[in-house]
Amino acid sequence: MHNQIGIIGLGTMGKALAMNFMNHGVQVVGYNRSPQVVNDLSSIYPENFIGASDLANLVLNLQKPRRVFLMLPANQIIDSFIEQLIALLDEGDIIMDGGNSYFKDTKRRSEYVEKHHLHYFGIGISGGEQGALLGPSIMPSGNQEAYAHIAPLLELIAAKKEGEPCCAYISTDGAGHYVKMVHNGIEYADMQLIAEVYLILKYNMKLSNLEMAQVFEEWQNSEVQSYLVEITSKILKEKDPQDKGELIDYIKDSASQKGTGKWTVLEAVDQGDNVSVIYSALNARIMSNQTQLRETYQYTQDNTSSNITLEQLHSAYALTKMSAYAQGFAQIQHASMMYEWHIDLRSVAAIFRAGCIIQAKFLSVLMEIFSTNQNCTNILFSDQIKAQVDAKIDHLRIVVIDALTRRSAIVAMTNALLYLDQIYAEHLGANLIQAQRDFFGAHTFERTDLEGVIHHEWGNE
Amino acid sequence: MHNQIGIIGLGTMGKALAMNFMNHGVQVVGYNRSPQVVNDLSSIYPENFIGASDLANLVLNLQKPRRVFLMLPANQIIDSFIEQLIALLDEGDIIMDGGNSYFKDTKRRSEYVEKHHLHYFGIGISGGEQGALLGPSIMPSGNQEAYAHIAPLLELIAAKKEGEPCCAYISTDGAGHYVKMVHNGIEYADMQLIAEVYLILKYNMKLSNLEMAQVFEEWQNSEVQSYLVEITSKILKEKDPQDKGELIDYIKDSASQKGTGKWTVLEAVDQGDNVSVIYSALNARIMSNQTQLRETYQYTQDNTSSNITLEQLHSAYALTKMSAYAQGFAQIQHASMMYEWHIDLRSVAAIFRAGCIIQAKFLSVLMEIFSTNQNCTNILFSDQIKAQVDAKIDHLRIVVIDALTRRSAIVAMTNALLYLDQIYAEHLGANLIQAQRDFFGAHTFERTDLEGVIHHEWGNE
Repeated sequence: MHNQIGIIGLGTMGKALAMNFMNHGVQVVGYNRSPQVVNDLSSIYPENFIGASDLANLVLNLQKPRRVFLMLPANQIIDSFIEQLIALLDEGDIIMDGGNSYFKDTKRRSEYVEKHHLHYFGIGISGGEQGALLGPSIMPSGNQEAYAHIAPLLELIAAKKEGEPCCAYISTDGAGHYVKMVHNGIEYADMQLIAEVYLILKYNMKLSNLEMAQVFEEWQNSEVQSYLVEITSKILKEKDPQDKGELIDYIKDSASQKGTGKWTVLEAVDQGDNVSVIYSALNARIMSNQTQLRETYQYTQDNTSSNITLEQLHSAYALTKMSAYAQGFAQIQHASMMYEWHIDLRSVAAIFRAGCIIQAKFLSVLMEIFSTNQNCTNILFSDQIKAQVDAKIDHLRIVVIDALTRRSAIVAMTNALLYLDQIYAEHLGANLIQAQRDFFGAHTFERTDLEGVIHHEWGNE
Repeated sequence: MHNQIGIIGLGTMGKALAMNFMNHGVQVVGYNRSPQVVNDLSSIYPENFIGASDLANLVLNLQKPRRVFLMLPANQIIDSFIEQLIALLDEGDIIMDGGNSYFKDTKRRSEYVEKHHLHYFGIGISGGEQGALLGPSIMPSGNQEAYAHIAPLLELIAAKKEGEPCCAYISTDGAGHYVKMVHNGIEYADMQLIAEVYLILKYNMKLSNLEMAQVFEEWQNSEVQSYLVEITSKILKEKDPQDKGELIDYIKDSASQKGTGKWTVLEAVDQGDNVSVIYSALNARIMSNQTQLRETYQYTQDNTSSNITLEQLHSAYALTKMSAYAQGFAQIQHASMMYEWHIDLRSVAAIFRAGCIIQAKFLSVLMEIFSTNQNCTNILFSDQIKAQVDAKIDHLRIVVIDALTRRSAIVAMTNALLYLDQIYAEHLGANLIQAQRDFFGAHTFERTDLEGVIHHEWGNE
């Protein structure tokens, strides 16, 4: 197969991906609206880069079946480029969207493009600019036969874990972008959980930045090892360029969000899935920006030191992180059934192990679980996870109660505990809710001791 | 003005509404696909009811400007009836949708119908079948001038509070259905909060059903007085028709949901509003149906009695209920700004005081707050509410910590506490999240001590 690809859009991500291809000996035919980056790449890669003056020129320079990557920032532009490409491409050529597109858009585009006898791939790419340049985690979805034409190229540039490329065919149409979306939802949750560990370490256990960095560094030798823990330890050590100590102490306590964390929650709610840990992470960012309300209510932290141990905190973090993954993977599995994607969750876990933001040791545990039971609807069903929950929930409870006592708003950890408590609970009180619904709306209920659905005439003493 | 209305769809809600109109001396011209109910109403109301054989006949029997109420169960049917009505009605005639339509559908239909020189009203109606028959809470939205043609009729059938009808013009297009949607979201939250009070009373404080009924009855004389508390007390006393004690003990611990609670959460998430109390109520219903997972993890309740007091529990319930209303009304206010509806939240609170499921004493407090400050974005800004929060949060904390210690999954109460703690908190840890985002994605951050947006090159020791 010829070693060649077209890339439309050479912004931060597109340019990094182009360089990654060329560094692996793949010829890139590149087009960008503003020509500066095209000229730059031409001079850095005189052999491997062909700058295209327009789309027709790009298509002319590609051999069949042509493979064209769209690396475009805005959603609407994608449709207009697809329209232009349909007019220029020939049967069997392939269009790939490597942006963070909404999976339903990808589904729609996929159907539209396939009608024109071309192939369309929605490709989730995780790892940011660095990942795109040095090896991202790649989640392609589209026509399975046509995948053979792009697999070797994608695997070439993907991150490698134990020699295996972190790139796997996910399923048809929007599946790849769906998986990427939930990846980002889990990312939100894990970042919030780490921020809560930081809150506890700093304000309740009174550790210095360097002591905290040390804790996270040690955790890297444990089951919670991850890229996010690694960079947290580096962040906490980072010197302030203004020479006032550590930089972390001078960063504003308010976090922004882009779309994918929100999308994850929207889809989960729509599907009827509980993603409370991811939702609380999203809300935590929202609340951090409620400056006026926070100023109205602000009080001072209680100054006594907490007695919880680092071991308890470690267990609590491990268990809540696991809960976030449980919710995220349950959501993917449910979507996979709803959309008939038949996604292999083992290979999803596998390709998350390198190149992406949520890469973590825990993913190997997930691989094992889904190897044993491909259709596992929730990892909490696995004996291995259940043993972990049983062993760690008391520690988590101690950490949460201690934080609540000290008025620390550790929303994601607390919601992970509540999620597990709901699963453990003998009684949830939903019988009263059913009674109320039947009382005011004749919505009926079921009895524990009889078959069938019942409406009762309430309050007719 | 002539005293006459057309009603299409005489199912549970449509029939009850028709009877309510006729009981108030309004002539109803009614159409229903299956004629049985038409015949029934004709024989019960020989003077006031005119059964229409088809839509043309219905229109023929109405005087101009004709007022036609759609009381249809399914969403798709509405569009087809609108299509038929447009062909039959004359300029200035009025179509009203009294179902639980999605507000964006109402917006779309409103624009479509107005183009045909007719008027369209989306009308939120709360109170179930009983409310529709005896006096519901009514939330109409549409063209403000045309509203004069329907206001007297709607006010006639609405619930009355201190002589005032619980019916108020909300705004244009989908505003009425939006307000009704959030009403239902708050309803979900309050029902869950009461179910959690029940869990605590029964399993932690070991009260009998009749003792619990007594508690809720006493609470009716306090600030938490509401319709839902009232029916809860009745439910707990209700005898089992099978003679096994109280019925509540034989109802299955799993609750269903219809669409509006979910919609409330979806819109809030999309708008960037935190509705954590409503969301946890929705999730609690979802979790109550995770039978298999619950069986895998079930453990037995610890059997010691809790030391919390009824006073503490009362404060906790009052404060968490207030938090649910705070989130719901903040969501309406935000939507009102986004869609330029200029909704008067004082009158929304006013019409919720009778006829609907969330009618409660607390709504008078909301009326006061929005009288003073119409644009209040969150009732937590009001001094009156702040004083309540300050006074009660310690009690809430005691109740939540006690329940968490006993592994009771009181998700809505806990999330209300977390919401308040987030607002109170001096530190949320979002600085670490911003540092992480800048580390892996160059998303930049702000400093507390300098102006501007900064990107830092991390980890280059």
